[in-house]
Amino acid sequence: MKTLVIISHPEIETSMVQNFLKASAAPLEAITWHHLDALETLDVAAEQALLRNHERIIFQFPLYWYAAPASLKMWLDTVLTGQFAFNGRQPLAGKTLGVVVSTGTAAKHFQAGGSEQATLSEILRPYELVARKLGMTYLPPLAIHQLGYWQETDKQCLVIDYQRYLTQSEFNFDQQLAWFEAMLTKKAAEATSPEAQQRLILLSEQFADKRSELTDLNWQVQLIREEEGEG
Amino acid sequence: MKTLVIISHPEIETSMVQNFLKASAAPLEAITWHHLDALETLDVAAEQALLRNHERIIFQFPLYWYAAPASLKMWLDTVLTGQFAFNGRQPLAGKTLGVVVSTGTAAKHFQAGGSEQATLSEILRPYELVARKLGMTYLPPLAIHQLGYWQETDKQCLVIDYQRYLTQSEFNFDQQLAWFEAMLTKKAAEATSPEAQQRLILLSEQFADKRSELTDLNWQVQLIREEEGEG
Repeated sequence: MKTLVIISHPEIETSMVQNFLKASAAPLEAITWHHLDALETLDVAAEQALLRNHERIIFQFPLYWYAAPASLKMWLDTVLTGQFAFNGRQPLAGKTLGVVVSTGTAAKHFQAGGSEQATLSEILRPYELVARKLGMTYLPPLAIHQLGYWQETDKQCLVIDYQRYLTQSEFNFDQQLAWFEAMLTKKAAEATSPEAQQRLILLSEQFADKRSELTDLNWQVQLIREEEGEG
Repeated sequence: MKTLVIISHPEIETSMVQNFLKASAAPLEAITWHHLDALETLDVAAEQALLRNHERIIFQFPLYWYAAPASLKMWLDTVLTGQFAFNGRQPLAGKTLGVVVSTGTAAKHFQAGGSEQATLSEILRPYELVARKLGMTYLPPLAIHQLGYWQETDKQCLVIDYQRYLTQSEFNFDQQLAWFEAMLTKKAAEATSPEAQQRLILLSEQFADKRSELTDLNWQVQLIREEEGEG
């Protein structure tokens, strides 16, 4: 699966979040990094070709006045022409759209009664509607609130969450396990010292063992349920 | 009350809706017409002064991909700086924000189960949140769906609805009546022939009579309710 990360950010060089995300994605393959504000002009045909050539599209931006910065709106208005997106054609149907949004406000404020009075799901509804209009599957947004205050361990988790967001084929538990297993195998193959490789292979085997154990347990629970007539 | 109409439309010259609205607003005083896409650069201080000098602000645009065109987003991102809008300062608090939105889709599609799957209230939520953040009162949006198919009489009603949207002080029944009475008096004063003036004065008097009759009735109903202990 190829992923296109469309970034809308007028001050990307000084953005801690964007630099962090770029570093997090660096080990991944098949990722196209596409910063809209760096483009001098929007080449509509080239942008449409990019969309056609990727299976997962990510809109990545800081939340400015309850939406993406203007460059993403300009991109939507210019690239998603009627001729491209409508009139029976649905060139993006079946692909996936994700939103990676950073905010300077704590998560708890995005709810009824919170200082923002609305959930991020409500605020980002227009992007969900764009996905629906294009026949795309909409991923639950990945929100990053106030990264500057995060603990180091939480940041390490974000690296993994972000990598999964860009590359995990489907967002269920089975696919999550498969993703981790593939990553461990890959890391073992790339290890620079024999000791590190040994450790990673061991970890990978243990993970695979636990995974098949879990699959067995799941299967047994299902059997019991069916016998009890709940299935 | 002074009203600032901020229009975001990349192709305003050929827009039937925008030409119609401009003609509808022509007889009104104290309206500033402000087309963002016609500006070469955004003079932040000048834009902020415009906001300070008007009591009602209107965002007027066609719905492109479930939001205003990019020029309004650029304006929001550029003009509503933290220094202007936050940090304890609320220079727009107590003013009113309205949204005049045109769509190429029939009204019935904007609902759960309709082809757009969302109401305009949901789609325009980000503007409502902007108003709330600035301490402004948010008016129910004025939506114009597929104006090209409208009957002439419906269009005449739209002229009045739009004029009221730009100038009526509050959106309740009393203020609506007061608005009509003031408009009739004004029209009578401006009439070019004595006959027309006579007719308009008569109409204006009849309207005033009916209005005081209605106020009396309202008052009586209230009295009866209070006597019955429901008040």
